[in-house]
Amino acid sequence: MTYAHKERGFCVWLTGLSAAGKSTIAQSLAKLLLDRGRQVTILDGDVVRRHLSKGLGFSREDRNTNVRRIGFVASEIVRHNGVVICAAISPYREARNDCRNMIGPDRFVLAFVDTPIAVCEQRDPKGLYVRARRGEITSFTGIDDPYEPPDDAEIVLTTTDYSPEENARKVTEYLLAQELL
Amino acid sequence: MTYAHKERGFCVWLTGLSAAGKSTIAQSLAKLLLDRGRQVTILDGDVVRRHLSKGLGFSREDRNTNVRRIGFVASEIVRHNGVVICAAISPYREARNDCRNMIGPDRFVLAFVDTPIAVCEQRDPKGLYVRARRGEITSFTGIDDPYEPPDDAEIVLTTTDYSPEENARKVTEYLLAQELL
Repeated sequence: MTYAHKERGFCVWLTGLSAAGKSTIAQSLAKLLLDRGRQVTILDGDVVRRHLSKGLGFSREDRNTNVRRIGFVASEIVRHNGVVICAAISPYREARNDCRNMIGPDRFVLAFVDTPIAVCEQRDPKGLYVRARRGEITSFTGIDDPYEPPDDAEIVLTTTDYSPEENARKVTEYLLAQELL
Repeated sequence: MTYAHKERGFCVWLTGLSAAGKSTIAQSLAKLLLDRGRQVTILDGDVVRRHLSKGLGFSREDRNTNVRRIGFVASEIVRHNGVVICAAISPYREARNDCRNMIGPDRFVLAFVDTPIAVCEQRDPKGLYVRARRGEITSFTGIDDPYEPPDDAEIVLTTTDYSPEENARKVTEYLLAQELL
Protein backbone atom coordinates (compact mmCIF):
# COMPACT_ATOMS: atom_id res chain seq x y z
CA MET A 1 0.00 0.00 0.00
CA THR A 2 1.47 3.33 -1.01
CA TYR A 3 0.42 6.64 0.46
CA ALA A 4 0.61 10.01 -1.19
CA HIS A 5 -0.21 13.56 -0.30
CA LYS A 6 -3.72 14.42 -1.36
CA GLU A 7 -2.70 16.87 -4.05
CA ARG A 8 -4.82 19.51 -5.67
CA GLY A 9 -5.27 19.67 -9.39
CA PHE A 10 -4.64 22.81 -11.37
CA CYS A 11 -4.34 24.11 -14.90
CA VAL A 12 -1.65 26.38 -16.30
CA TRP A 13 -2.99 27.91 -19.47
CA LEU A 14 -0.39 29.39 -21.83
CA THR A 15 -1.84 31.87 -24.31
CA GLY A 16 0.05 33.81 -26.96
CA LEU A 17 0.79 34.12 -30.65
CA SER A 18 2.02 31.31 -32.87
CA ALA A 19 5.77 30.80 -32.24
CA ALA A 20 5.58 32.82 -29.00
CA GLY A 21 7.17 29.89 -27.17
CA LYS A 22 4.13 28.33 -25.50
CA SER A 23 4.93 24.66 -26.28
CA THR A 24 8.58 24.99 -25.24
CA ILE A 25 7.64 26.56 -21.90
CA ALA A 26 4.95 23.89 -21.46
CA GLN A 27 7.57 21.17 -21.86
CA SER A 28 10.04 22.82 -19.46
CA LEU A 29 7.27 23.30 -16.93
CA ALA A 30 6.09 19.69 -17.31
CA LYS A 31 9.63 18.51 -16.49
CA LEU A 32 9.77 20.60 -13.30
CA LEU A 33 6.37 19.29 -12.19
CA LEU A 34 7.23 15.68 -13.03
CA ASP A 35 10.37 16.10 -10.90
CA ARG A 36 8.04 17.03 -8.05
CA GLY A 37 6.20 13.75 -8.54
CA ARG A 38 3.11 15.19 -10.21
CA GLN A 39 1.33 13.48 -13.08
CA VAL A 40 1.16 16.02 -15.91
CA THR A 41 -0.79 16.24 -19.14
CA ILE A 42 0.11 18.72 -21.85
CA LEU A 43 -2.78 19.68 -24.11
CA ASP A 44 -1.15 21.34 -27.08
CA GLY A 45 -3.39 23.30 -29.42
CA ASP A 46 -1.87 21.79 -32.54
CA VAL A 47 -2.16 18.24 -31.25
CA VAL A 48 -5.72 18.74 -30.02
CA ARG A 49 -6.73 20.02 -33.44
CA ARG A 50 -5.73 16.70 -34.92
CA HIS A 51 -7.82 14.74 -32.42
CA LEU A 52 -10.64 16.46 -30.57
CA SER A 53 -11.20 19.22 -33.06
CA LYS A 54 -10.62 17.68 -36.45
CA GLY A 55 -12.94 19.41 -38.87
CA LEU A 56 -12.96 22.75 -37.06
CA GLY A 57 -11.67 25.77 -38.94
CA PHE A 58 -10.28 29.12 -37.86
CA SER A 59 -13.36 31.31 -37.63
CA ARG A 60 -13.97 33.03 -34.30
CA GLU A 61 -16.65 30.45 -33.50
CA ASP A 62 -14.51 27.43 -34.44
CA ARG A 63 -11.48 28.78 -32.57
CA ASN A 64 -13.61 29.28 -29.47
CA THR A 65 -15.10 25.79 -29.81
CA ASN A 66 -11.59 24.35 -30.02
CA VAL A 67 -10.49 26.29 -26.91
CA ARG A 68 -13.60 25.21 -24.96
CA ARG A 69 -12.96 21.55 -25.86
CA ILE A 70 -9.44 21.87 -24.48
CA GLY A 71 -11.00 23.54 -21.43
CA PHE A 72 -13.45 20.66 -21.00
CA VAL A 73 -10.70 18.04 -21.00
CA ALA A 74 -8.58 20.21 -18.70
CA SER A 75 -11.48 20.62 -16.28
CA GLU A 76 -11.88 16.83 -16.04
CA ILE A 77 -8.17 16.38 -15.33
CA VAL A 78 -8.25 19.07 -12.63
CA ARG A 79 -11.41 17.56 -11.10
CA HIS A 80 -9.40 14.37 -10.62
CA ASN A 81 -6.59 16.37 -9.00
CA GLY A 82 -4.31 16.11 -11.98
CA VAL A 83 -2.06 18.78 -13.44
CA VAL A 84 -2.70 19.98 -16.95
CA ILE A 85 -0.73 22.47 -19.02
CA CYS A 86 -2.60 23.89 -22.00
CA ALA A 87 -0.62 25.55 -24.78
CA ALA A 88 -2.97 27.10 -27.27
CA ILE A 89 -3.11 30.49 -29.00
CA SER A 90 -6.62 30.94 -27.51
CA PRO A 91 -6.96 34.41 -29.02
CA TYR A 92 -10.35 35.42 -27.61
CA ARG A 93 -11.06 36.60 -24.05
CA GLU A 94 -14.53 35.09 -24.12
CA ALA A 95 -13.41 31.47 -24.55
CA ARG A 96 -10.47 31.90 -22.14
CA ASN A 97 -12.94 33.14 -19.52
CA ASP A 98 -15.23 30.18 -20.19
CA CYS A 99 -12.27 27.88 -19.51
CA ARG A 100 -11.41 29.75 -16.31
CA ASN A 101 -14.97 29.23 -15.10
CA MET A 102 -15.21 25.61 -16.25
CA ILE A 103 -11.95 24.68 -14.51
CA GLY A 104 -12.56 26.85 -11.45
CA PRO A 105 -10.93 30.25 -10.95
CA ASP A 106 -8.86 29.01 -7.96
CA ARG A 107 -7.36 26.20 -10.05
CA PHE A 108 -6.75 28.15 -13.23
CA VAL A 109 -3.53 30.06 -13.90
CA LEU A 110 -3.47 32.11 -17.06
CA ALA A 111 0.09 32.72 -18.28
CA PHE A 112 0.46 35.21 -21.11
CA VAL A 113 3.46 34.37 -23.28
CA ASP A 114 3.95 37.97 -24.35
CA THR A 115 6.32 37.68 -27.31
CA PRO A 116 6.09 40.60 -29.76
CA ILE A 117 4.85 39.57 -33.18
CA ALA A 118 8.06 40.83 -34.81
CA VAL A 119 10.01 38.29 -32.73
CA CYS A 120 7.53 35.48 -33.48
CA GLU A 121 7.79 36.31 -37.16
CA GLN A 122 11.57 36.26 -37.06
CA ARG A 123 11.59 32.83 -35.37
CA ASP A 124 8.85 31.38 -37.57
CA PRO A 125 9.94 27.74 -37.00
CA LYS A 126 7.24 26.31 -39.25
CA GLY A 127 7.41 29.01 -41.91
CA LEU A 128 3.80 29.94 -41.19
CA TYR A 129 4.29 33.70 -40.91
CA VAL A 130 6.02 33.79 -44.28
CA ARG A 131 3.11 31.92 -45.83
CA ALA A 132 0.56 34.13 -44.06
CA ARG A 133 2.32 37.30 -45.29
CA ARG A 134 2.21 35.87 -48.81
CA GLY A 135 -1.51 35.25 -48.40
CA GLU A 136 -1.06 31.49 -48.75
CA ILE A 137 -2.61 31.05 -45.31
CA THR A 138 -5.53 33.19 -44.22
CA SER A 139 -7.10 33.78 -40.80
CA PHE A 140 -3.64 33.72 -39.23
CA THR A 141 -3.58 35.16 -35.71
CA GLY A 142 -1.70 38.45 -35.57
CA ILE A 143 -1.63 38.87 -39.35
CA ASP A 144 -5.22 38.90 -40.57
CA ASP A 145 -6.96 37.47 -37.50
CA PRO A 146 -7.21 39.14 -34.08
CA TYR A 147 -5.41 38.30 -30.85
CA GLU A 148 -6.93 39.80 -27.72
CA PRO A 149 -4.08 40.10 -25.19
CA PRO A 150 -5.28 39.14 -21.71
CA ASP A 151 -5.63 41.81 -19.04
CA ASP A 152 -6.39 39.14 -16.44
CA ALA A 153 -3.28 36.94 -16.71
CA GLU A 154 -1.87 35.70 -13.41
CA ILE A 155 1.59 35.66 -14.97
CA VAL A 156 3.16 37.47 -17.92
CA LEU A 157 6.18 35.72 -19.43
CA THR A 158 8.80 37.44 -21.56
CA THR A 159 10.65 35.14 -23.92
CA THR A 160 13.10 37.70 -25.29
CA ASP A 161 14.88 38.11 -21.93
CA TYR A 162 14.28 34.72 -20.32
CA SER A 163 14.86 31.13 -21.37
CA PRO A 164 12.01 28.58 -21.37
CA GLU A 165 13.55 27.04 -18.21
CA GLU A 166 13.58 30.42 -16.45
CA ASN A 167 9.98 31.04 -17.44
CA ALA A 168 8.96 27.56 -16.27
CA ARG A 169 10.62 28.31 -12.90
CA LYS A 170 8.66 31.57 -12.65
CA VAL A 171 5.45 29.60 -13.09
CA THR A 172 6.37 27.08 -10.39
CA GLU A 173 7.25 29.96 -8.04
CA TYR A 174 3.80 31.37 -8.61
CA LEU A 175 2.21 27.94 -8.04
CA LEU A 176 4.16 27.54 -4.78
CA ALA A 177 3.10 31.01 -3.60
CA GLN A 178 -0.53 30.08 -4.34
CA GLU A 179 -0.09 26.77 -2.49
CA LEU A 180 -1.09 24.88 -5.60
CA LEU A 181 2.23 23.05 -5.35
CA MET B 1 -2.33 17.81 5.41
CA THR B 2 -4.65 15.01 4.30
CA TYR B 3 -3.44 11.62 3.22
CA ALA B 4 -5.19 9.24 0.92
CA HIS B 5 -4.57 5.83 -0.48
CA LYS B 6 -2.78 6.06 -3.78
CA GLU B 7 -5.69 4.87 -5.87
CA ARG B 8 -5.60 3.52 -9.37
CA GLY B 9 -7.70 4.97 -12.13
CA PHE B 10 -9.96 2.85 -14.29
CA CYS B 11 -12.69 3.10 -16.89
CA VAL B 12 -15.96 1.21 -16.97
CA TRP B 13 -17.27 1.38 -20.51
CA LEU B 14 -20.98 0.60 -20.94
CA THR B 15 -21.91 -0.36 -24.49
CA GLY B 16 -25.35 -1.30 -25.77
CA LEU B 17 -28.36 -0.17 -27.77
CA SER B 18 -30.24 3.07 -27.25
CA ALA B 19 -32.55 2.66 -24.20
CA ALA B 20 -30.64 -0.45 -23.09
CA GLY B 21 -30.17 1.16 -19.67
CA LYS B 22 -26.54 2.37 -19.92
CA SER B 23 -27.04 5.82 -18.39
CA THR B 24 -29.14 4.51 -15.49
CA ILE B 25 -26.55 1.88 -14.62
CA ALA B 26 -23.81 4.53 -14.98
CA GLN B 27 -25.56 6.70 -12.41
CA SER B 28 -26.13 3.84 -9.96
CA LEU B 29 -22.50 2.80 -10.34
CA ALA B 30 -21.27 6.37 -9.84
CA LYS B 31 -23.19 6.52 -6.55
CA LEU B 32 -21.57 3.32 -5.29
CA LEU B 33 -18.10 4.57 -6.24
CA LEU B 34 -18.68 8.01 -4.72
CA ASP B 35 -19.73 6.25 -1.50
CA ARG B 36 -16.30 4.63 -1.58
CA GLY B 37 -14.71 8.06 -1.72
CA ARG B 38 -13.72 7.97 -5.38
CA GLN B 39 -13.97 10.97 -7.66
CA VAL B 40 -16.09 9.88 -10.63
CA THR B 41 -16.77 11.33 -14.06
CA ILE B 42 -19.61 10.07 -16.23
CA LEU B 43 -19.07 10.62 -19.95
CA ASP B 44 -22.48 10.10 -21.48
CA GLY B 45 -22.65 9.70 -25.25
CA ASP B 46 -25.56 12.10 -25.63
CA VAL B 47 -23.93 14.80 -23.53
CA VAL B 48 -20.56 14.40 -25.23
CA ARG B 49 -22.23 14.82 -28.62
CA ARG B 50 -23.38 18.27 -27.54
CA HIS B 51 -19.88 19.34 -26.49
CA LEU B 52 -16.87 17.45 -27.83
CA SER B 53 -18.52 16.10 -30.93
CA LYS B 54 -20.89 18.82 -32.09
CA GLY B 55 -21.01 18.64 -35.85
CA LEU B 56 -20.38 14.91 -36.10
CA GLY B 57 -23.06 12.76 -37.71
CA PHE B 58 -23.96 9.09 -37.49
CA SER B 59 -21.90 7.52 -40.25
CA ARG B 60 -19.56 4.71 -39.22
CA GLU B 61 -16.63 7.13 -39.37
CA ASP B 62 -18.31 9.87 -37.35
CA ARG B 63 -19.59 7.40 -34.76
CA ASN B 64 -16.08 6.01 -34.35
CA THR B 65 -14.60 9.51 -34.10
CA ASN B 66 -17.12 10.31 -31.36
CA VAL B 67 -16.25 7.12 -29.47
CA ARG B 68 -12.51 7.78 -29.79
CA ARG B 69 -12.93 11.32 -28.44
CA ILE B 70 -14.72 9.90 -25.40
CA GLY B 71 -11.86 7.40 -25.15
CA PHE B 72 -9.28 10.18 -25.28
CA VAL B 73 -10.90 12.10 -22.41
CA ALA B 74 -11.35 8.85 -20.47
CA SER B 75 -7.69 7.95 -20.96
CA GLU B 76 -6.60 11.31 -19.50
CA ILE B 77 -8.83 10.83 -16.46
CA VAL B 78 -7.47 7.31 -15.90
CA ARG B 79 -3.89 8.56 -16.33
CA HIS B 80 -4.53 10.89 -13.39
CA ASN B 81 -5.91 7.97 -11.38
CA GLY B 82 -9.51 9.06 -11.71
CA VAL B 83 -12.55 6.90 -12.29
CA VAL B 84 -14.56 7.38 -15.44
CA ILE B 85 -17.77 5.68 -16.51
CA CYS B 86 -18.54 5.94 -20.21
CA ALA B 87 -22.07 5.30 -21.39
CA ALA B 88 -22.20 5.32 -25.16
CA ILE B 89 -23.79 3.03 -27.74
CA SER B 90 -20.29 2.57 -29.24
CA PRO B 91 -21.58 0.14 -31.86
CA TYR B 92 -18.30 -0.79 -33.58
CA ARG B 93 -15.66 -3.19 -32.26
CA GLU B 94 -12.89 -1.27 -33.95
CA ALA B 95 -13.40 1.98 -31.99
CA ARG B 96 -14.10 0.11 -28.73
CA ASN B 97 -10.78 -1.68 -29.16
CA ASP B 98 -9.02 1.62 -29.83
CA CYS B 99 -10.39 2.91 -26.54
CA ARG B 100 -9.28 -0.23 -24.71
CA ASN B 101 -5.75 0.31 -26.02
CA MET B 102 -5.72 4.06 -25.41
CA ILE B 103 -6.87 3.66 -21.82
CA GLY B 104 -4.78 0.57 -21.15
CA PRO B 105 -6.23 -2.97 -21.18
CA ASP B 106 -5.63 -3.42 -17.42
CA ARG B 107 -7.65 -0.30 -16.61
CA PHE B 108 -10.49 -0.84 -19.04
CA VAL B 109 -13.63 -2.78 -18.17
CA LEU B 110 -16.06 -3.31 -21.01
CA ALA B 111 -19.59 -3.92 -19.75
CA PHE B 112 -22.11 -5.04 -22.33
CA VAL B 113 -25.61 -3.88 -21.43
CA ASP B 114 -27.28 -6.74 -23.27
CA THR B 115 -30.89 -5.64 -23.51
CA PRO B 116 -32.80 -7.20 -26.45
CA ILE B 117 -33.91 -4.67 -29.02
CA ALA B 118 -37.55 -5.63 -28.49
CA VAL B 119 -37.25 -4.53 -24.86
CA CYS B 120 -35.43 -1.30 -25.79
CA GLU B 121 -38.14 -0.57 -28.32
CA GLN B 122 -40.88 -1.15 -25.78
CA ARG B 123 -39.21 1.21 -23.27
CA ASP B 124 -38.37 3.87 -25.86
CA PRO B 125 -38.20 6.70 -23.30
CA LYS B 126 -37.40 9.36 -25.88
CA GLY B 127 -39.70 8.00 -28.60
CA LEU B 128 -36.71 7.47 -30.86
CA TYR B 129 -37.52 3.89 -31.91
CA VAL B 130 -41.02 4.93 -32.99
CA ARG B 131 -39.54 7.70 -35.10
CA ALA B 132 -36.85 5.40 -36.52
CA ARG B 133 -39.48 2.79 -37.48
CA ARG B 134 -41.45 5.54 -39.22
CA GLY B 135 -38.29 6.53 -41.08
CA GLU B 136 -38.24 9.99 -39.48
CA ILE B 137 -34.78 9.20 -38.08
CA THR B 138 -32.27 7.31 -40.17
CA SER B 139 -28.99 5.64 -39.23
CA PHE B 140 -30.55 4.46 -35.97
CA THR B 141 -28.55 1.71 -34.27
CA GLY B 142 -30.39 -1.59 -34.33
CA ILE B 143 -32.96 -0.43 -36.88
CA ASP B 144 -31.08 0.63 -40.01
CA ASP B 145 -27.57 0.91 -38.56
CA PRO B 146 -25.45 -1.96 -37.21
CA TYR B 147 -24.57 -2.83 -33.64
CA GLU B 148 -21.65 -5.22 -33.25
CA PRO B 149 -22.17 -7.01 -29.92
CA PRO B 150 -18.86 -7.39 -28.06
CA ASP B 151 -17.32 -10.83 -27.69
CA ASP B 152 -14.65 -9.38 -25.39
CA ALA B 153 -16.77 -7.81 -22.65
CA GLU B 154 -15.48 -8.28 -19.11
CA ILE B 155 -19.08 -8.18 -17.85
CA VAL B 156 -22.43 -8.83 -19.47
CA LEU B 157 -25.37 -7.12 -17.75
CA THR B 158 -28.98 -8.19 -18.12
CA THR B 159 -31.50 -5.46 -17.50
CA THR B 160 -34.64 -7.56 -17.84
CA ASP B 161 -33.85 -9.62 -14.72
CA TYR B 162 -31.81 -7.16 -12.65
CA SER B 163 -32.32 -3.61 -11.48
CA PRO B 164 -29.78 -0.85 -12.28
CA GLU B 165 -28.62 -1.02 -8.63
CA GLU B 166 -28.07 -4.78 -8.86
CA ASN B 167 -26.13 -4.35 -12.09
CA ALA B 168 -24.04 -1.57 -10.58
CA ARG B 169 -23.21 -3.89 -7.67
CA LYS B 170 -22.15 -6.59 -10.12
CA VAL B 171 -19.71 -4.15 -11.66
CA THR B 172 -18.23 -3.15 -8.29
CA GLU B 173 -17.84 -6.84 -7.41
CA TYR B 174 -15.87 -7.31 -10.59
CA LEU B 175 -13.74 -4.23 -9.84
CA LEU B 176 -13.01 -5.53 -6.34
CA ALA B 177 -12.04 -8.95 -7.70
CA GLN B 178 -9.65 -7.23 -10.14
CA GLU B 179 -8.23 -5.11 -7.31
CA LEU B 180 -9.20 -1.96 -9.15
CA LEU B 181 -11.19 -0.97 -6.07
